[in-house]
Amino acid sequence: MYSPYANVSERELAPPSLAISTVIFALRRDGDTGRPELWLPLVRRIREPYRDRWALPGGPLAARESLQDAAARNLADTTGLTPRYLEQLYAFGGPERSPSPRVVSIVYWALVQPDEAALARESDNVRWFRADAVGELAFDHNTIVDYALWRLRNKTEYGQAAYAFLGELFTLAQLREVYEAVLGRELDPGNFRRQLRATPQISATEHYLAGGRHRPPRLYRYTPDPDMVPGPVPSTPQRSTE
Amino acid sequence: MYSPYANVSERELAPPSLAISTVIFALRRDGDTGRPELWLPLVRRIREPYRDRWALPGGPLAARESLQDAAARNLADTTGLTPRYLEQLYAFGGPERSPSPRVVSIVYWALVQPDEAALARESDNVRWFRADAVGELAFDHNTIVDYALWRLRNKTEYGQAAYAFLGELFTLAQLREVYEAVLGRELDPGNFRRQLRATPQISATEHYLAGGRHRPPRLYRYTPDPDMVPGPVPSTPQRSTE
Repeated sequence: MYSPYANVSERELAPPSLAISTVIFALRRDGDTGRPELWLPLVRRIREPYRDRWALPGGPLAARESLQDAAARNLADTTGLTPRYLEQLYAFGGPERSPSPRVVSIVYWALVQPDEAALARESDNVRWFRADAVGELAFDHNTIVDYALWRLRNKTEYGQAAYAFLGELFTLAQLREVYEAVLGRELDPGNFRRQLRATPQISATEHYLAGGRHRPPRLYRYTPDPDMVPGPVPSTPQRSTE
Repeated sequence: MYSPYANVSERELAPPSLAISTVIFALRRDGDTGRPELWLPLVRRIREPYRDRWALPGGPLAARESLQDAAARNLADTTGLTPRYLEQLYAFGGPERSPSPRVVSIVYWALVQPDEAALARESDNVRWFRADAVGELAFDHNTIVDYALWRLRNKTEYGQAAYAFLGELFTLAQLREVYEAVLGRELDPGNFRRQLRATPQISATEHYLAGGRHRPPRLYRYTPDPDMVPGPVPSTPQRSTE
């Protein structure tokens, strides 16, 4: 007979607890260079373990919430953000990741557009950090941030995620800046232009960037490829907080 | 002050329980046509809820196990399989997915090669089904199977997952049969050949399919692109069962 309990003592079956965490990436322009850089909000822990350390926003799952709703609520509560792009990233649950009892964290990630990021709140216990300078975080949250950056860079290499940071229309220079911020290196403008023009998901529009310039740059639009079409997982609308 | 508990009563914080489930896909040749088709193993439930219904293999998490180890153990216990390709698929945790208390399932999926599938066990309570004819499963497991099929078809369109079903070397006809089994439709052999020859990850070897044929077909090899390189999530070796 099938028994998943074979060789496992009663004590070891003490149920792990479950948490929802979120990694939120937004672009902020550097004050000196004007270039966009990747930032993310962190929350200061106000109790043990890891008291006073910075951690990813998160919390428990309420009874009637879907996992996605819990992620949306947690991140709205802490940061004031309600991003359009919020997806499940990965579940982290190694036995070594927190002092007993074990906590399994289902991590969501959000990529935030400039109009959304403008609404972000800060306080003594909520602060934004550059993604490459978060310091030593609570629990295994450095591992989670590293994994999210890796996934972002992978997705970006294949041209899927960068557009989540941009509005509907963008110039090729704006798009290149986003790629540079995500990849952490400069790209050759000529090569970048040629590659993007050969990408079927990028199409030129009849619109140009507003402003007093002599030759205003053209605006482009991104149309997701079928890989980005949501799957058959039932999605629930994000709850707004009262 | 940040409190994830705002507006949530004590009773609603009853912790959900956690389970690990696995979706295992293997190819089996149809007895009549000889074509490979997608199959998966299911387990008959021997207790309520959903007693006697078929369900995905799974079980709880033991204290010292990683999520990945628990998935590997559960699927070895039920099916005798220890697949090389075993990855986290998605966490399902909607409040409606099971009678109280809520169960959050972290689902892993495996793509099984022919040499591995040959070791699979069957019994009264473990049986393989065609992926498109599983009937009405326990809990929301039909949704999970549909999601896994959708992900598999998406990955396959982009040429990443089909190779997990094949050995190290394969003919282009074998590869086309795998694509056809996954996508559920026939592909034009000439177009398929041309597309695959233009795919940088597919390279011809100096080897040919063994057998007495006059012109034996050439064997090809797949080299994963960087998108398939594992990320910085600490991976643990799969535990073998004693």
